[in-house]
Amino acid sequence: MTPAENAQLALLLEVAGTPKPGNVDRERDLPDLRFEHFLAGAVGAGAGLRAAEAGAPVGEAFERAVEGMSQQEGDNTQFGSLLLLVPLVRAASEGELTPERASAVVESTTVADAADFYRAFEHVDVLVDDPPEDVPDLDVRRGADAVPAVEERGVTLYDVMAVSADEDGVAREWTGRFARTFDAAERLGKLTGPTSDRAAQVFLELLAEEPDTLVATAHDRETAERVRERARATLDGQEDPTALADELVERGVNPGTTADVVAAGLFVALERGEVSV
Amino acid sequence: MTPAENAQLALLLEVAGTPKPGNVDRERDLPDLRFEHFLAGAVGAGAGLRAAEAGAPVGEAFERAVEGMSQQEGDNTQFGSLLLLVPLVRAASEGELTPERASAVVESTTVADAADFYRAFEHVDVLVDDPPEDVPDLDVRRGADAVPAVEERGVTLYDVMAVSADEDGVAREWTGRFARTFDAAERLGKLTGPTSDRAAQVFLELLAEEPDTLVATAHDRETAERVRERARATLDGQEDPTALADELVERGVNPGTTADVVAAGLFVALERGEVSV
Repeated sequence: MTPAENAQLALLLEVAGTPKPGNVDRERDLPDLRFEHFLAGAVGAGAGLRAAEAGAPVGEAFERAVEGMSQQEGDNTQFGSLLLLVPLVRAASEGELTPERASAVVESTTVADAADFYRAFEHVDVLVDDPPEDVPDLDVRRGADAVPAVEERGVTLYDVMAVSADEDGVAREWTGRFARTFDAAERLGKLTGPTSDRAAQVFLELLAEEPDTLVATAHDRETAERVRERARATLDGQEDPTALADELVERGVNPGTTADVVAAGLFVALERGEVSV
Repeated sequence: MTPAENAQLALLLEVAGTPKPGNVDRERDLPDLRFEHFLAGAVGAGAGLRAAEAGAPVGEAFERAVEGMSQQEGDNTQFGSLLLLVPLVRAASEGELTPERASAVVESTTVADAADFYRAFEHVDVLVDDPPEDVPDLDVRRGADAVPAVEERGVTLYDVMAVSADEDGVAREWTGRFARTFDAAERLGKLTGPTSDRAAQVFLELLAEEPDTLVATAHDRETAERVRERARATLDGQEDPTALADELVERGVNPGTTADVVAAGLFVALERGEVSV
């Protein structure tokens, strides 16, 4: 499989994993966000992923992937996953996929990449934190309207990620050598059984280690920390994963950032031959 | 979505539908053929489907789709579905998707298309009937070895399908104006709810109407007829669909041809806007 194909497959294997407490999986739909929206999102993202594989700039390939992903009625399905996958696909197309090569790709992003990243917000509603108080004109929710400010300030896409790294686990992968992504890949490779089952297990492990930043944004830090503790209890056999999954779905608590990292980890594991399907 | 994307999505929606008695679905794996093999098959088929969309000959696009599909460890996942989807994608790329246009595409296939079809058997193990006694040299199981005989006899891909139309429900779609495919699309459009749920319902309806030809080939006509009767009983509320699904999976009775027609019907319904995701 090519890097773009492995990225599409990673998106599908991620959502197929079950139970994945709080998120859509092959046995759980949310009221307006269903399993099949993720299938369509993965299909639609293909052209953007192939653009990344062919060497298109990260921002341009990302915007195209998000535009394609959004051709379904569930709105935002895989925005965060694609923000990790696009530079990883680009890195994989250039040689062996390593943290060094992935870091080199994101560190070399430009102001034009940042502008395309802002344009990507035109295609979907993405839940994000408020921007730092000193840079209100860089609020990503402004979409393309923020592009003049991005250009005037000369911020690259890497700079944008660095600003949110404290609050956003996806941005933290960009600025932190994709540490959790590569760690997830290694864990996936060490487990046995169907790949989507391994993905569900690694999801739970990552969730038990760090509070999910999407839960912190959508609810608050305390909720995110409480979810982390319960994921830990589940791993320790003190809670039933299926019951926790049902309860979090019911309460609308969706650890989406952790799922994004698992999708990226699946991609790395497929590329490096640590898992196969 | 483009025709190639809708075809990929149709493959994914088909396998996601549950319960689909006897086949892999999102809640049932077979011992060596798992849900994730179908996800990988759909991803891998993409390049061949895009070739069909771009106007490549049907045989060439089909062989490429099958080669891509077979890049997973479950062997044959969607051979029959692709044999329906490739000409339908080609037809959809030329204008409004109608039985007339689809028939025109298959009727204009050539000897070269037939040769590529035989070559496609090199990539996967496909369960097929014995060829008619008077044409043993055209046995598809010979793969590329049969190509000289195909060329010498001057048989087109449509001719090959016409020979097996009695025994094979996929070939019958080729020679019968894709009647069940377009009927399935119409049924899908009339139902309500998530598209993959509709697919499971239409699968059961088609299975209740005609014996599945793959079951007849793998077992015998009596088994296929008995499965048809039980699907009918399930629709009539006299059998539980989940129990029937589990039993058929347990016995290794897989109505794969009916699933192929549902996948093709999903594609037609997506293209014609009869369903949306």
